[in-house]
Amino acid sequence: MNYYAEPISRLINELSKLPGIGPKTAQRLAFYMLHMPKDAVHTLAQSINDARDKIIYCSICGNLTDVDPCAICSSSTRDNSTICVVESPTDVVAMEKTRGYNGLYHVLHGAISPIDGVGPDDIRIKELLTRLRDSQVKEVILATNPSVEGEATALYISRMLKPMGFKVTRIANGIPVGGDLEYADEVTITRALEGRREM
Amino acid sequence: MNYYAEPISRLINELSKLPGIGPKTAQRLAFYMLHMPKDAVHTLAQSINDARDKIIYCSICGNLTDVDPCAICSSSTRDNSTICVVESPTDVVAMEKTRGYNGLYHVLHGAISPIDGVGPDDIRIKELLTRLRDSQVKEVILATNPSVEGEATALYISRMLKPMGFKVTRIANGIPVGGDLEYADEVTITRALEGRREM
Repeated sequence: MNYYAEPISRLINELSKLPGIGPKTAQRLAFYMLHMPKDAVHTLAQSINDARDKIIYCSICGNLTDVDPCAICSSSTRDNSTICVVESPTDVVAMEKTRGYNGLYHVLHGAISPIDGVGPDDIRIKELLTRLRDSQVKEVILATNPSVEGEATALYISRMLKPMGFKVTRIANGIPVGGDLEYADEVTITRALEGRREM
Repeated sequence: MNYYAEPISRLINELSKLPGIGPKTAQRLAFYMLHMPKDAVHTLAQSINDARDKIIYCSICGNLTDVDPCAICSSSTRDNSTICVVESPTDVVAMEKTRGYNGLYHVLHGAISPIDGVGPDDIRIKELLTRLRDSQVKEVILATNPSVEGEATALYISRMLKPMGFKVTRIANGIPVGGDLEYADEVTITRALEGRREM
């Protein structure tokens, strides 16, 4: 038995396929959309199609963009002597939001993870090496996640780049700002201690 | 400063307008959609447009439908001597899911709420009276919510219908199945006591 008219149940079904959207949330969203002005609904649908159709990967850094090369790679005000290596496009957003970094990026689209069958050739390491050759880059900042996979990836890349003469750095581990020493895990506290600085 | 390519930030902006979708969830959904197959994304956008364009209100009961009259109103197997009055189309779904009711519905699209400026003429009470005239309806079940507004609406409708000779009933209040007496409020327990039945 179908409790909804066909277009409603189809919409609820499509919305439930999205991550974190269960059947209840999908129903709530669907009924909300039915009460939105038609224009607003069409704009929403159009923006979904547009994003999927227009967004491509930057051929230089691998970030998501609608122009190739992307705005960061083609910017004349960014410092092209520094490259920050991250795992995903959302990491670029997180870095940019700090407003504290003005260099370039390189998006790996993953991290080395033998257990998931992801080796060094499956992520954009080759592209990074090609890009570094004949470039003005002096420092490579490894900003992969501080997970087992992210650490392994950082180690792998640093071992390749150091013999080539690049300055290779890794973002610091430690207690997050606003965090609580009491609830931090041992490894994080150990790293925070190791990374202590004179005041 | 814009951290995303324009189509992405537009999509995130559109998604954040939906209820319960904050900026973080909108970003997560947007990036998820960017990695979905194009076909799936177009189907999603199409189902959003379709639902909004094809869904209308049933001219008889006021429920959401894609055909007029709706499947319930035009069904020959439903008991047309009983009408269940509810506040919204989602309440019809909730009732239908019980599979225990086989009569017709009447959706008010709201409840009487003087504080919000909603009077009896602002919800579909007039349509209910018109519909009951010359009908085979014997019983009207008032299934508005057990809130102040829902109770007021039920009282108002019952006072109009009783003199017309209809059997008017109200859904029971009590402890929800699986609920806990300890955590039930006093009013609910009082109602549950009043509504006690012999075993």
